Amino acid sequence: MNTQPIRIGIIGYGNLGRGVELAIKQNADMVLKGVFTRRAPESVRLLTEGVPVYHVDTLPSMTDDFDVMILCGGSATDLPVQGPFYASLYNTVDSFDTHANIPDHFAKVDQAAKNAGKVCMISVGWDPGLFSLNRLYGEAILPQGATYTFWGKGVSQGHSDAIRRIEGVETAKQYTIPVEEALDSVRRGEAPVLSTREKHRRVCFVVAKEGADLAKIEKEIVTMPNYFAEYETTVHFIDRETFDREHGGMAHGGFVLRSGKTGVNVETNHVIEYSLRLGSNPEFTSSVLVAYARAVAKLAKEGVAGAKTVFDIPPAYLSPKSAEDLRKELL
Amino acid sequence: MNTQPIRIGIIGYGNLGRGVELAIKQNADMVLKGVFTRRAPESVRLLTEGVPVYHVDTLPSMTDDFDVMILCGGSATDLPVQGPFYASLYNTVDSFDTHANIPDHFAKVDQAAKNAGKVCMISVGWDPGLFSLNRLYGEAILPQGATYTFWGKGVSQGHSDAIRRIEGVETAKQYTIPVEEALDSVRRGEAPVLSTREKHRRVCFVVAKEGADLAKIEKEIVTMPNYFAEYETTVHFIDRETFDREHGGMAHGGFVLRSGKTGVNVETNHVIEYSLRLGSNPEFTSSVLVAYARAVAKLAKEGVAGAKTVFDIPPAYLSPKSAEDLRKELL
Repeated sequence: MNTQPIRIGIIGYGNLGRGVELAIKQNADMVLKGVFTRRAPESVRLLTEGVPVYHVDTLPSMTDDFDVMILCGGSATDLPVQGPFYASLYNTVDSFDTHANIPDHFAKVDQAAKNAGKVCMISVGWDPGLFSLNRLYGEAILPQGATYTFWGKGVSQGHSDAIRRIEGVETAKQYTIPVEEALDSVRRGEAPVLSTREKHRRVCFVVAKEGADLAKIEKEIVTMPNYFAEYETTVHFIDRETFDREHGGMAHGGFVLRSGKTGVNVETNHVIEYSLRLGSNPEFTSSVLVAYARAVAKLAKEGVAGAKTVFDIPPAYLSPKSAEDLRKELL
Repeated sequence: MNTQPIRIGIIGYGNLGRGVELAIKQNADMVLKGVFTRRAPESVRLLTEGVPVYHVDTLPSMTDDFDVMILCGGSATDLPVQGPFYASLYNTVDSFDTHANIPDHFAKVDQAAKNAGKVCMISVGWDPGLFSLNRLYGEAILPQGATYTFWGKGVSQGHSDAIRRIEGVETAKQYTIPVEEALDSVRRGEAPVLSTREKHRRVCFVVAKEGADLAKIEKEIVTMPNYFAEYETTVHFIDRETFDREHGGMAHGGFVLRSGKTGVNVETNHVIEYSLRLGSNPEFTSSVLVAYARAVAKLAKEGVAGAKTVFDIPPAYLSPKSAEDLRKELL
């Protein structure tokens, strides 16, 4: 095993960046060498003593000091630009999660990474990420079948924002929750045909402004097209104190199921179920990013170049253990 | 994509071999080119028309006709010999599942495969196999935590055999069943310390011979050391007809859970749960073997040689889809 720790950098210091900082502490073969920000570096206080904070402008001059950069920006505007740019300088891992734009993002990062001789993983996390892996393993192993992804229980930022835009709403949070009957039908091997709206219900916690018309707010929510009208939606009005106390968490999770059939008459049922119950979405996502940073460091040592996804990475590359120990302890 | 189908051979035609035969039919990019048996070939009737049955003695002369051989013998006596021997002739996949002997089996197959320039996967199936993968992913992503494997509900052959050896027993079947309270404690993130016996209970269905002393049989079962004495064990006496009607199935399954913590004070809980509910243990295991045969064929084309396990295989290699399609459809 390599005795030099893997030198990691973090670009972007929000919830995800802090999660990466904490996850690195849990991995003895890694060290956090620096955090990069667009803010004034002296204004950023890390959770860790002794780690320097740099302005992102210094990134091009520090390529010898880091083995892997973990990009902790957002998918909407940061990563589409940062992904290809930093791929020309560093081995990277990002959590790009705009599903529809993955092929385009991959192509751009791939070209930059190949030109620079870097290994750059995109779309790492739990969905895309671990859920994607389970969709792949499921359909490869049970080719005749159906795959189901359920999300939640967890906060949907987009739906919470939509409620907040309604007149009379002070603040709000929306939880996406899997429909238990739909989940159970899949688990029984009934292979139901289910749309996203049949798999999820929506529960809203709303703090109204003083004197606001609650009935009107509720009606506006439950009839909002695309966001709520097609779903079973419940609205709870609560006071600010309750909201702050009970709805500040970032728990999330979900399920990937593969239901398939085998046998002489293709009537033997099998169900593979993968689920996550996450106390903190950003902390867990960070932990996935850090494990894949290890894989990137190993691939870079082998001289591999180009963009990669979780589909390309041999599972052993995620572990600090030797191949011998993995076979002995975990196989 | 390769337009030539992957040419598969089956060595050993029992439950597992028949499962492989059926699984190949579900994969359009594969073809079953032959089945090899130690019996007289003309005495073996396949489920598939037009596929030749050969005696195993002809195997050394047919190395140009097969891309991958799937070894469907048992782990006790067949695979320790067949694994290294056939690795000197063919790319292979086996389901060797004697956990303690995996390092030795790996070393022998690895040497033979490297000498012959072949790719040979060992210990493919669900445990070892898919469960191993989930143990690895779980501990790599949540390094501070605990991993739990529960088996069942499913028949344990060893325990059923032990009951059958008791005087007065005509036949018997023993089901290993996860203890629901233990599972739920893990799911709640309580990270309990659990021995195998605290995770499983044992339910026995026994057909007694006429005039046998049922109380004595029951006592012999529940007090049998190692097998039952340390477990919560239930014994049901049933008649032969009920036994044949209700206990001929080969359903199995189980759970792998990883419970781990992250965060500033390492107190945020996360639980990853992977579970299988299998209508037929051999049919599902066969489906896993066949998916990994595809990976072996791809690796062989790349010129890779040596023994491999599920830990070494990039997930994309299991799928017939292109990397582009995987990213677009499943990521």
